[in-house]
Amino acid sequence: MERWLVNGASGDSIGLNDRGLHYGDGLFETIAVRNGTCRFIGAHLQRLSEGCARLKLPVPDLPVLESELQQLSRTVDHATVKVIVTRGAGPRGYRFPDPCMPTRIVGLEQTEPQPYPESGVQVRYCATRISRNPQFAGLKTLNRLEQVMARAEWNDPGIAEGLMSNDRDEIICGTMTNVFLVSRGILYTPSLLESGVSGIMRQQVIAVAADNGIEVQEASLSQYALSSADEIFLTNALIGLWTLSTLAGQKIRQGKLSETIRAALASRGVVECAP
Amino acid sequence: MERWLVNGASGDSIGLNDRGLHYGDGLFETIAVRNGTCRFIGAHLQRLSEGCARLKLPVPDLPVLESELQQLSRTVDHATVKVIVTRGAGPRGYRFPDPCMPTRIVGLEQTEPQPYPESGVQVRYCATRISRNPQFAGLKTLNRLEQVMARAEWNDPGIAEGLMSNDRDEIICGTMTNVFLVSRGILYTPSLLESGVSGIMRQQVIAVAADNGIEVQEASLSQYALSSADEIFLTNALIGLWTLSTLAGQKIRQGKLSETIRAALASRGVVECAP
Repeated sequence: MERWLVNGASGDSIGLNDRGLHYGDGLFETIAVRNGTCRFIGAHLQRLSEGCARLKLPVPDLPVLESELQQLSRTVDHATVKVIVTRGAGPRGYRFPDPCMPTRIVGLEQTEPQPYPESGVQVRYCATRISRNPQFAGLKTLNRLEQVMARAEWNDPGIAEGLMSNDRDEIICGTMTNVFLVSRGILYTPSLLESGVSGIMRQQVIAVAADNGIEVQEASLSQYALSSADEIFLTNALIGLWTLSTLAGQKIRQGKLSETIRAALASRGVVECAP
Repeated sequence: MERWLVNGASGDSIGLNDRGLHYGDGLFETIAVRNGTCRFIGAHLQRLSEGCARLKLPVPDLPVLESELQQLSRTVDHATVKVIVTRGAGPRGYRFPDPCMPTRIVGLEQTEPQPYPESGVQVRYCATRISRNPQFAGLKTLNRLEQVMARAEWNDPGIAEGLMSNDRDEIICGTMTNVFLVSRGILYTPSLLESGVSGIMRQQVIAVAADNGIEVQEASLSQYALSSADEIFLTNALIGLWTLSTLAGQKIRQGKLSETIRAALASRGVVECAP
């Protein structure tokens, strides 16, 4: 990241007693900036607020946070902003101060628009498992070692993403994406009751599907379900929607339902998936 | 913490691009300083090295780290030092730079000796579950939100520790301790193949038990196993060994085997458990 605000002040460092560093005691959001605007800002702030409540963290002052986001992004065409909220500084030990003084970090990085991968991306399976714990499921916490180790499984730049399963061999997500498959006209996505992140673009896809009369089901999905699917696509807040060219070397078909969702997202401002 | 060294230099902050903050991408050690010496330093550095290998992190230069630890602690009677090793700075995203430049943080906090709690401590059960993932089991990673939320379940200063179970109702550990129970003369402790931290004092207890002809078994232990145990004790690197006065309100007996282990630890320099 190029530019940071820490509790509203420009900075490039954080105190060594911060619980974000010691315990991953906090949450984050990664937001696409397009033409000076933080896309789906309301949904990001909503998820952040809900996450804070679940972690017993004070919800940041949202108008203040929003004005900081605008301050960083309003003159920028294409960028990624990251928001990190930690429980702030504290004495050693897991017990946190109550009240605490959260640390609010906002960072900006300018990025280059990427062409939409029309023929789809190559995806693999990861051996690193994602663990199950309903208490943290859906949250974008700072505890992300599983994703880090899963992403370390490949170096081939031709492979865009790796899919992660839990100990029951249920596919949960990609390292940085949510997963959808189409079977007999129904859109399925892994249930996030035990693991995974409730992605902002995933929420958009579900809304867009409803708008288009497409049934969506959250389900337990195996590798078999994926390999026998009619269509598969991945989503996140920055990429929008990617279809797959191959999964674990197997060719994946491009399909009509993915195309409908893609076009609907594009019309909602997700320019990454406008070819 | 009062005094920090970051990669050998005095400091009180860390760069905002550090992966320790973003992902909990790193490990830590908490070490007791007694009379100017870092206790069980060899075991701590060994565990740190093994953890680095498992996370594909370069092992820190151990003689350098050891000299930093000595620099902070040699004139100090009673303190806690914390070592944090992160994967260092990197661009946004789970993928880490290879090679990376790890961040090596050493912090010192002077502490007061605490009297040994001869009649035992009060312990409760936590509702927060500890998740299972063999890839990270035994490691003291910076991903510690489960312990944070478990410790947030009580405020009563009379309660010293809370025990955590996995989704199979197996007791794994306390929020900051390892657990042992005695039944019919055998010492049992939870298996750490799926969760938990391989504690330095736990290793000492296992060694001391062998020295004293006491059989030790790693096992799956339920709440029932604990409530029907002859003796129970908790360990960590800072407290040494605590017996229990009550567990979830039920009185726990003090016993002879715990006393043998306690005395043997005390004779190995664990002054906290010398009454």
